[in-house]
Amino acid sequence: MIEDKDIHVGIIGGLGKMGRWFHRFFGEHGYPVSVADLGTETTPEDLAKTCNLVLVAVPLQHTVEVVRAIGPLVQNDALLMDIASLKSEVVSTMLEVSAASVLGTHPLFGPGEPNVTGQTVVMCPGRGQWWQEWLQGVLVEGGARVEVVTPEVHDYYMAVVQGLTHFSTLALGLTIDSLGVDLKNLKRFATPAFHRRLMEITHLLSQDADLYAAMPMLNSTYGVFYREFERIILDLKGVIAQKDIDEFIRLFDRARSHFRSSES
Amino acid sequence: MIEDKDIHVGIIGGLGKMGRWFHRFFGEHGYPVSVADLGTETTPEDLAKTCNLVLVAVPLQHTVEVVRAIGPLVQNDALLMDIASLKSEVVSTMLEVSAASVLGTHPLFGPGEPNVTGQTVVMCPGRGQWWQEWLQGVLVEGGARVEVVTPEVHDYYMAVVQGLTHFSTLALGLTIDSLGVDLKNLKRFATPAFHRRLMEITHLLSQDADLYAAMPMLNSTYGVFYREFERIILDLKGVIAQKDIDEFIRLFDRARSHFRSSES
Repeated sequence: MIEDKDIHVGIIGGLGKMGRWFHRFFGEHGYPVSVADLGTETTPEDLAKTCNLVLVAVPLQHTVEVVRAIGPLVQNDALLMDIASLKSEVVSTMLEVSAASVLGTHPLFGPGEPNVTGQTVVMCPGRGQWWQEWLQGVLVEGGARVEVVTPEVHDYYMAVVQGLTHFSTLALGLTIDSLGVDLKNLKRFATPAFHRRLMEITHLLSQDADLYAAMPMLNSTYGVFYREFERIILDLKGVIAQKDIDEFIRLFDRARSHFRSSES
Repeated sequence: MIEDKDIHVGIIGGLGKMGRWFHRFFGEHGYPVSVADLGTETTPEDLAKTCNLVLVAVPLQHTVEVVRAIGPLVQNDALLMDIASLKSEVVSTMLEVSAASVLGTHPLFGPGEPNVTGQTVVMCPGRGQWWQEWLQGVLVEGGARVEVVTPEVHDYYMAVVQGLTHFSTLALGLTIDSLGVDLKNLKRFATPAFHRRLMEITHLLSQDADLYAAMPMLNSTYGVFYREFERIILDLKGVIAQKDIDEFIRLFDRARSHFRSSES
């Protein structure tokens, strides 16, 4: 039986942005942390064999392959855990290749956050209640909200929360680039709402292109939602081209009542 | 010759949101303000004849028609001014139908702002330097940034600042509605970026559908930019469907360098 004082965290991908974040997080909570990454002497296999909290924090597109490689080495009473932005394939792979406790998590924040206070962490439990309760305790104590849900439900909502959000923001940035609109002038004439959109675009573009490529390519729901977004855009563009004010107002009101009904 | 102490403001559409805002604004600066709107005893014609700052603050889609009706009545040494979100047609109509000083303006903020501090007001001068300098002085004294530009340049940039911003936000809201995605769950699983997108959607939907219908229907550049947005979306969707990571990264990097180059 694991006890809190025996926990030793091993982070695979520990030199990445989120890897460093969890290194600091667990360190601040008093747990010893070991790290493996490209170029470290310690290997992922070393950590998998010797640590009892094995955290996979590699880029999304490599998560399943790393889990396959090190999952079988994790001790039965240890925890195998990941933090990838998509959960279905990773959680089922962890359960398949390892006999350890399994916990998929998705911290819904970036590495710029100083701590978990006010942040949300999604948890997709795979196997082993002790570890789930332990991690939930650590996170909630730090002020996080923990949302427990199946990997499939998580991935469905992420197709909006990540998928449509990134897709529409990236498309807006690419459109401004492609139209050759002068950015200095755009900023001179920015409304508060447009200023916020510009910040979202530059924030997104400051991050890893790999991650934004991997997310939609690994979750087929994203494509379904993109098609609906495209259909809506075609529709809306047609309504505007035909100067069909009544239909525009009908669409606007429909969306308004949808979003209003959720406020209650 | 007009003197500051003789200025009497008349606001046509003075009971609307921005009309009320300017009523308060000019009132706080010590100028007497009269108001005409649907249902007031005072008519737009009364104001046009008797006030020397005639501010047209009616909904965008009625601005040109109101200017045509009252413009010829405005005194030669008075100012005829509007605050519509598009400027080309309104400014040229004011110049055409009136012999008064003419100033097109576009306050780049909504009626929720307590004052002009930190806000931007676009000015499209038509005729008459005294009034332009006077208004610029009042605004700058209040802490506003004033951007002076031609109506055509203003309308071009607004096709991005207003056009693409509203279009993409409304399309995202309609897509979420159309997909039937549960909003309570979306909020449970919201990242900070998605939470901000949700706020933009609900903020846009809390405003007048008429205005959002009128803007793109009255400025043909909007349609051109919407087509490019649609083309980019089709392109990006294809890249993702084909799992063409290299092309995705190339697009991402292109947008990144475009937005980065503007920061210097």
